[in-house]
Amino acid sequence: MKEIVLFVDKVIDRLNPEQVKQMLDTLEKAYRSGHKVLVMGAGRSGLVGRAFAMRLMHLGFNVYVLGETITPSIGKDDVVVAISGSGRTKLIVTATEAAKKVNATIIAVTSYPDSPLGQLADIVVEIPGRTKMAPDIDYFARQILGIHEPLAPLGTLFEDTALVFLDGVVVELMHRLGKSEADLRAKHANIEL
Amino acid sequence: MKEIVLFVDKVIDRLNPEQVKQMLDTLEKAYRSGHKVLVMGAGRSGLVGRAFAMRLMHLGFNVYVLGETITPSIGKDDVVVAISGSGRTKLIVTATEAAKKVNATIIAVTSYPDSPLGQLADIVVEIPGRTKMAPDIDYFARQILGIHEPLAPLGTLFEDTALVFLDGVVVELMHRLGKSEADLRAKHANIEL
Amino acid sequence: MKEIVLFVDKVIDRLNPEQVKQMLDTLEKAYRSGHKVLVMGAGRSGLVGRAFAMRLMHLGFNVYVLGETITPSIGKDDVVVAISGSGRTKLIVTATEAAKKVNATIIAVTSYPDSPLGQLADIVVEIPGRTKMAPDIDYFARQILGIHEPLAPLGTLFEDTALVFLDGVVVELMHRLGKSEADLRAKHANIEL
Amino acid sequence: MKEIVLFVDKVIDRLNPEQVKQMLDTLEKAYRSGHKVLVMGAGRSGLVGRAFAMRLMHLGFNVYVLGETITPSIGKDDVVVAISGSGRTKLIVTATEAAKKVNATIIAVTSYPDSPLGQLADIVVEIPGRTKMAPDIDYFARQILGIHEPLAPLGTLFEDTALVFLDGVVVELMHRLGKSEADLRAKHANIEL
Repeated sequence: MKEIVLFVDKVIDRLNPEQVKQMLDTLEKAYRSGHKVLVMGAGRSGLVGRAFAMRLMHLGFNVYVLGETITPSIGKDDVVVAISGSGRTKLIVTATEAAKKVNATIIAVTSYPDSPLGQLADIVVEIPGRTKMAPDIDYFARQILGIHEPLAPLGTLFEDTALVFLDGVVVELMHRLGKSEADLRAKHANIEL
Repeated sequence: MKEIVLFVDKVIDRLNPEQVKQMLDTLEKAYRSGHKVLVMGAGRSGLVGRAFAMRLMHLGFNVYVLGETITPSIGKDDVVVAISGSGRTKLIVTATEAAKKVNATIIAVTSYPDSPLGQLADIVVEIPGRTKMAPDIDYFARQILGIHEPLAPLGTLFEDTALVFLDGVVVELMHRLGKSEADLRAKHANIEL
Repeated sequence: MKEIVLFVDKVIDRLNPEQVKQMLDTLEKAYRSGHKVLVMGAGRSGLVGRAFAMRLMHLGFNVYVLGETITPSIGKDDVVVAISGSGRTKLIVTATEAAKKVNATIIAVTSYPDSPLGQLADIVVEIPGRTKMAPDIDYFARQILGIHEPLAPLGTLFEDTALVFLDGVVVELMHRLGKSEADLRAKHANIEL
Repeated sequence: MKEIVLFVDKVIDRLNPEQVKQMLDTLEKAYRSGHKVLVMGAGRSGLVGRAFAMRLMHLGFNVYVLGETITPSIGKDDVVVAISGSGRTKLIVTATEAAKKVNATIIAVTSYPDSPLGQLADIVVEIPGRTKMAPDIDYFARQILGIHEPLAPLGTLFEDTALVFLDGVVVELMHRLGKSEADLRAKHANIEL
């Protein structure tokens, strides 16, 4: 477990501040204009996306999750946040292409800026994970942590780092939008299954 | 299959028009005032509820589904549609009690108006299903159809009838709100998983 | 509402018994061999699929739903049930192509046997709905019911008919597998959200 | 973001090794005997639970998530993992009571061992989060990190720590069960929405 934390810590240090600022600016603008934010991801990246979407809802965003019941159509000026470590998850790429066609602004959270998802995106936030290309090598573990054995299977390191990163985005949005924790609590579901 | 259709047909004939009118009036008022509608059900009744919620979204309602990611808090003047054949599903009764405490208006769709759910509700639409009390007897099959063998297991007949009933509610709301099919299509998710 | 029931009734009459038999045989074989069944659909068709999957689980099938948390990989000899009125829903077609590559057996439930989904499938059960091509014409309503106004918006008639049809499949599987309602109840979730 | 990582790191240091061992032993036994594991949580804790359940599935566990379509009944010798920071989430407590009645083994992951959930559990893994009792005080932030301003809203710190902790559990289970990353990849959904 300590190794996962260490990995997350190192990756957070390496985030590109300009990329993060672009994401924050775009989300703040969507909030102030009332435009929709659609969050999408497959598998565990989709769960991380839902955790982020729930907080955006608590902040008062007009936010939806791909694949849930009441997700409406989106259009120009709406924002898509697409989460995929590899940037190659076929159905996320397909959905992003559809979002691109209606001129939504695409924010990609991925380990691979030059992946199909990265190339479709208007804004890319790069979150290094273990390489998908040579998973046995644990490229990033070696390069970043200087250790030589697998840390956690499959996309775990990307997913855990993405959750912490997106929760940091939420804290920053609270400051920008002047929201207190009590504001969030007021929007939190009071009837919860 | 024919027997299921025959059952649904007989039950639709027996709907109480005054109950249906109250439900329609309450939903129309929520639409016009912009108040929230929260749809809830467990198991297959929950799936029927989601199918209904999706159409309410297409109609432009401010609608949510219990248990999904972006479901917010609700309050006074908001409307809850709770679906439970037996009216005894513990978690739906618990959730309805919570909704009652914040003074939401409760519409129950159930086979048992005198069940815990029925008694909590402001409006009850009774949709007879097979009795839950003596499921081996297939009470309603006998009484309504005059046949003496099981038609479909567990809550099937309630669930199928509830779906057709709620789709009828959608058609009636289209007329009341002056919505065409093209209006619904415009809201239909254009990026669909 | 009566019109929806009438439509469902007419469509059930027109089902192709050979197609239905092939679907039943394939599902029975999957049950007896313990192979997996993966159910998939988008939007309301996906909800109908989940309602069907829940009953297959009650019957003791090794069944999964595309997009849910614990859905595993599938392979040769596994069965996919893909539900799409138009047979063109992009993500269902994409997923079916992936299933085809691993040599799963594909059962399509669709209004269009000659659609992309229909052409990928090993077995097609045709369930006529309103035409997607000329929705204003309500082709099937005219042709089947002899009436000349829209019955229900978008894919409603396909979805409602598909639910009743699949519940009929469940009843037939109960007979074939010698399962009683008590058997199903024993598998029904006893801790339900 | 750094503060979230620092918090997670400190909490991981404070985990009770005996509690973690009990959880690992119980899960290993469920794997070896083929008994079911049912994972449950509400809101963001539920999403963390799903991310954990997905990895248990990849490991070959017979695992289910409360509230999903194909979740079956559970009984004696089955294991429930209930995740709730406060240990007071009403519906999780209700569901845990139901699981207790059928004599399932309950593992609680919570910040409050003396909460209703903690008291129902056979095994408690305590993961300190911010206190729910006096959220404005940020008790744990002060006590653990020595800082005096809010770190992240609502249950964020519990949820992020729980995800990292449970991913650590997965790594340890891989070792105990002799599973390689390739084993997990073989079970990973190959048709993913």
